Amino acid sequence: MSRETTYNFAAGPAVLPEEALKTAAAEMLDFNGSGMSVMEMSHRSAIYQSIFDETKANLKKALAVPDTHEVLFLQGGASAQFSMVPLNLMGENGTADYVITGNFSGIACKEARKFGTVNVAADTSDCNHTRIPKQEELKLTPDARYFHYCANNTVFGTEWHYVPDVGDVPLVADMSSDILTQPVDISRYGIIYAGAQKNMAPAGVTVVIIRKELAGHELPFTPLIMSYKTMIDKDSMYNTPPCYTIYMLGLVLKWLEKQGGIAAMSELRKERSGLLYDYLDNSRLFHGCAEKDARSYMNVTFTTGDKEKDTEFCKAATAAGFLNVKGHRLVGGMRASVYNAQPMKAVQALVDFMKEYEAKNG
Amino acid sequence: MSRETTYNFAAGPAVLPEEALKTAAAEMLDFNGSGMSVMEMSHRSAIYQSIFDETKANLKKALAVPDTHEVLFLQGGASAQFSMVPLNLMGENGTADYVITGNFSGIACKEARKFGTVNVAADTSDCNHTRIPKQEELKLTPDARYFHYCANNTVFGTEWHYVPDVGDVPLVADMSSDILTQPVDISRYGIIYAGAQKNMAPAGVTVVIIRKELAGHELPFTPLIMSYKTMIDKDSMYNTPPCYTIYMLGLVLKWLEKQGGIAAMSELRKERSGLLYDYLDNSRLFHGCAEKDARSYMNVTFTTGDKEKDTEFCKAATAAGFLNVKGHRLVGGMRASVYNAQPMKAVQALVDFMKEYEAKNG
Repeated sequence: MSRETTYNFAAGPAVLPEEALKTAAAEMLDFNGSGMSVMEMSHRSAIYQSIFDETKANLKKALAVPDTHEVLFLQGGASAQFSMVPLNLMGENGTADYVITGNFSGIACKEARKFGTVNVAADTSDCNHTRIPKQEELKLTPDARYFHYCANNTVFGTEWHYVPDVGDVPLVADMSSDILTQPVDISRYGIIYAGAQKNMAPAGVTVVIIRKELAGHELPFTPLIMSYKTMIDKDSMYNTPPCYTIYMLGLVLKWLEKQGGIAAMSELRKERSGLLYDYLDNSRLFHGCAEKDARSYMNVTFTTGDKEKDTEFCKAATAAGFLNVKGHRLVGGMRASVYNAQPMKAVQALVDFMKEYEAKNG
Repeated sequence: MSRETTYNFAAGPAVLPEEALKTAAAEMLDFNGSGMSVMEMSHRSAIYQSIFDETKANLKKALAVPDTHEVLFLQGGASAQFSMVPLNLMGENGTADYVITGNFSGIACKEARKFGTVNVAADTSDCNHTRIPKQEELKLTPDARYFHYCANNTVFGTEWHYVPDVGDVPLVADMSSDILTQPVDISRYGIIYAGAQKNMAPAGVTVVIIRKELAGHELPFTPLIMSYKTMIDKDSMYNTPPCYTIYMLGLVLKWLEKQGGIAAMSELRKERSGLLYDYLDNSRLFHGCAEKDARSYMNVTFTTGDKEKDTEFCKAATAAGFLNVKGHRLVGGMRASVYNAQPMKAVQALVDFMKEYEAKNG
C-alpha cells in the first residue's frame, strides 16, 4: 500500500494535511538553518519561542479568540480536562451540570463526581445516543459552577447544532472532534478544550481556551500542572511543553489559513459529510445511525443493520484501501471520520466503493 | 548555520541521534508501506500497536526490567509525576521522605506536601546544591510510604553516584536526565520516572517504571489519568497516548542498541564528561561548579567566577556555533549537557574552543 492507494478514515489520531507532513519531513534535521531539529530545541530558546508564539497567534486568529480568553497548550488529552475542569471550577461544595450524549461526556461526568455534586442536565443513553437533547430538555441548576457538554460525539456520530443557553453559568465544551471546523463565538464560553489528534495535530497536545477570570480558584489538592492559573501565568511553559506537537499544530494552522480558514472548513464539512449522508439516505443496504437533525459533520456512523454484513463490508473496504472504517464497539457498524484534512476525493472514493459494493451485495 | 557547523548543548529537549531523525523524516509520509504517517495512525490499530509493543519491549530489554515491574508511557513530564507519586503512594495520613538536591527535587517535595506529611531526609540548599548527601546523612522515617530523590540534577550538574539504602521503604527516583545512561538494578526501585526529552525522545512522553504491587492505592481525589493502576490495566492506552513521541523513542532505542546499549553509554558518559572535567580542572579561566565527587556525567556546569566574563564567553561560544551553553539562572555560568546522543566530536570541539578562548582571554 501507499499514500496514493489508501484512504484513512480513522477517528483520531487521523489523517493530516500532506503539506504539513512534507514540511515536517523537510525540516526534520534542520529547521530553517538553525542546525537543529525542532525536536532538539530547548523550549527556553528564542528560536523555539518564536515557533510557539506564531502557533499560538495563528490559533487565536483562526478562532477569533478575544482578549478575555487565554489559549493554553497542555498535555493529557481531553481525559486530563475531565479532571482539570472540576478541579479548577467546582470549588468547595459546588454543583455542576453535565449533559451525557455519548462515551466521553459520560466519562467526564463520572470523573466530576469525585470533586463535587453533579446534576445530569440531560442524558441520551436511552436511545444509545443517536440524538442531541433540545434546549428545552436541559434541566439546569440555577447556581451551577459550570455547564459541561461534548460538542461532537466521535463514537456515536452526533453533533450539537446549537450552543446551549445556560445564562450566566460558565459554559464548558469538549470540542476535541470539531474544533476549527466552524466559526465559534468564543466569548460565550468559559472553557473550550480539545485534544489535537482529530483536526489539529498528532496526539500529544491539548488546546484549552479559557476565560481568564475563571482561573485561580482550584481545589487545594489540585496537581500543580493541573492548575489553569499556573499555566496561564507561565504561558503554558510551567514545565516542558510537547514542543514538537505544537510545531506540527503550527504547520496545520498554516495549511488551514491557505485553504481559506474556518469559513472554508465550515463549507467543506457539509460537502464531505453530505456526500456520505446523501448516499446513505438513498441506499437500500446501508443507513446512518444518528437521527438526521443530530448528525455529525465529522463522524459519519452507518450500518447495514446486520452484524455479519457489517463485518463483511469492513473487511472488503479495508482490502480496497479504506482504512479504519470499523465503528466503535459501543455502536458497531461502520464509521467514516471526515475531519478538516480529509481530502474530498477520499470521501468520493468511499461513496463510489459503497455504491459498487451495494450493487454487488445489496 | 547548519547541522555540520553547530553543536547543541541544550539541557533538554536536547540533541537526538541523527539516525533516528533521518528515519523519522524518511517515514514521515508513509510508514513501512502503510500509506500513513505514524502521526495519522489510530492508536487502536494493529499497525500502531506493533510500534508501541516493540518500543516497550526494547525499553524493557535495554533496562532489564523484571516482571515485577511495569513500563508505562504517560504524559505531563516529570512535573506530572511530582503529583502522581504522592497521589498513588502517600495513602491517608502518610509520611514520605524527600531529599532536596536541586530545583526539581525541591518542587517535587513542595508538591508532595499537598497530599501528606513530608520529611526532608536531606537538603543541600545551604551550599547551592553543589554536592550530594552521603548515605549516613539521610534522616529516614522508619515507616515512610516512600523515599524520593532526583538521581541527576540537571540545573546544578550533580548526580548521585550511589543508590540510597532505605530498607523496605519503596525507593522512588526521578531519572529524567540520566535514564538509559548506566545500568540500573530496577528491582531496587518502587518507581522510576523520567521525562523523555534528555536521553530518550522529543518532549511529550514520560516513562514510568513501577513495581506493580504499589499501584491501586491512590487517594480518592486522584484524577483518572493519574492513577497508575488505570494505566497499568490499560497498558498506557486508557486514553490516546502521545503516539508519535513513543515512535521516536522506539527509533532512539534502536539506535541505542546498535551503539552497544547501556553498557556502551555508561563508558561514553565518562569519556564525554571527562574531556570537559579534565580540562576544567587544569584551566586557569574556568572551573567546575559542583564538588568533584558529586559531578554529573550528563550536565557539566562551569564558570569563570565572574558574571561579565561568563556572559562574554556565552556570547562568543554561541557565535561559534556552540548552542545553549548558558547556565540555568539558579546557578549562572555555563552548562554543557552531554547526553547519550551528544557526539564526542561536539564535546571535543567545545573543549578546543574553550582552550583557544582561554589562551586569548585567560
